[in-house]
Amino acid sequence: MVRIKCTAAYDGTNFSGYQVQPEMRTVQGEIEASLSRIHKGQPIKITSSGRTDAGVHARAQVFHFDTPLSIPDPNWPRALNAQLPDDIFIHQAETVPSDFHARFDVKVKEYRYRLLISEEPDMFRRLYTYHMPKKLDLNKMNEACQYFIGTHDFTSFCAANTSVTDKVRTIYSMDVSLQGDEAVIAVKGQGFLYQMVRIMTGALIEAGLNRMPPYEIKDILLKKDRRAAPKTAPAHGLTMWKVTY
Amino acid sequence: MVRIKCTAAYDGTNFSGYQVQPEMRTVQGEIEASLSRIHKGQPIKITSSGRTDAGVHARAQVFHFDTPLSIPDPNWPRALNAQLPDDIFIHQAETVPSDFHARFDVKVKEYRYRLLISEEPDMFRRLYTYHMPKKLDLNKMNEACQYFIGTHDFTSFCAANTSVTDKVRTIYSMDVSLQGDEAVIAVKGQGFLYQMVRIMTGALIEAGLNRMPPYEIKDILLKKDRRAAPKTAPAHGLTMWKVTY
Repeated sequence: MVRIKCTAAYDGTNFSGYQVQPEMRTVQGEIEASLSRIHKGQPIKITSSGRTDAGVHARAQVFHFDTPLSIPDPNWPRALNAQLPDDIFIHQAETVPSDFHARFDVKVKEYRYRLLISEEPDMFRRLYTYHMPKKLDLNKMNEACQYFIGTHDFTSFCAANTSVTDKVRTIYSMDVSLQGDEAVIAVKGQGFLYQMVRIMTGALIEAGLNRMPPYEIKDILLKKDRRAAPKTAPAHGLTMWKVTY
Repeated sequence: MVRIKCTAAYDGTNFSGYQVQPEMRTVQGEIEASLSRIHKGQPIKITSSGRTDAGVHARAQVFHFDTPLSIPDPNWPRALNAQLPDDIFIHQAETVPSDFHARFDVKVKEYRYRLLISEEPDMFRRLYTYHMPKKLDLNKMNEACQYFIGTHDFTSFCAANTSVTDKVRTIYSMDVSLQGDEAVIAVKGQGFLYQMVRIMTGALIEAGLNRMPPYEIKDILLKKDRRAAPKTAPAHGLTMWKVTY
């Protein structure tokens, strides 16, 4: 048996999230079905760096699996891409030591949230950006980012329906930059709670629209109550950007 | 009755083309159904600048319709967008003289074809660009464009299954420019034959890959035979960009 690490991109639009669920089209389900076909029907389980919610995209999600087949590394993407639907693409595969673990060995995860700042929507970016027809104050948003950086209890920025008990997380970096007509939020951390990036994005938007002073994020964190934070930004603006091991 | 001129964007991915066909999801069908709902069930026909093929997108398609309703111009896009699916968007509407005709009054039509020049595909542009994993010689492509500009019999660059008999058309301008990692072909003319832009694009690609000298386009035009021209570039790279009246 060898362990293979893969880097995958997917368009979250038409998936009910990453994780396998009965009767639903999921990223994990499609990849496992393709691997099973390559293994002549033998079921193969994959383990990813973490799940993504319904509608969230990935530029470079990472997963591993174990296989009895001996296929040269560069042939794995070809074999998988030939089987996969066109909204999942395997960019890379490599043989890794058998103790490599796609979830436990993560050092840094980076997410990006794309906000399209324009009066009119853009038909060809509607699936990958969240349209903001109003001007955003990027200085205010970057000021707001400073309150998230570091180690905090993120209970206020975690969806209420979660079974996770330890809600302390560390944000390594977070900023907003203008890229053409898009404001792009980039955030790096070791891991994130359920919907955490989208709720933090919701708070940055409030700060950018001057509806909330940036320092209020400090108070919201201290309240440890989801109801204290602004509403969750929609899934389709969010992309899992990079996972570092 | 007043005549309304509308400018619409659509994502061609999930349509069986522009023109109404029984049992098929078409752009015209969706717009007419939305207009009919606004008119309390009364059927309303729209007339566009011309149809687009299955899979072809539009940034600014133009159509007109006649209505007994008196709705202020800026309210038409709002009313229509509230009814339309999210892969069609009405950017603008204006009352025009009753002799305005979206098809017959066209002065210039512009199409753009987006080629993504990169080794790896891009998940988030796969629906709107044609992926070219090889380098293209843009000088050769621009040289090739020169042979299309002007008035020619475009029989060789028209899909064989068409009922149109006069295949003489005029190209006003055509060029290829590098925009980031995309080579964008922009072509303007008064009108185009069935699949003409996509077959011309196929020829530009052959020239760009150094598989055909640009001057051969002259010979292909003279042959007046579809079989003389290279294969049709795929629909999803093409966008109806602008219609001028």
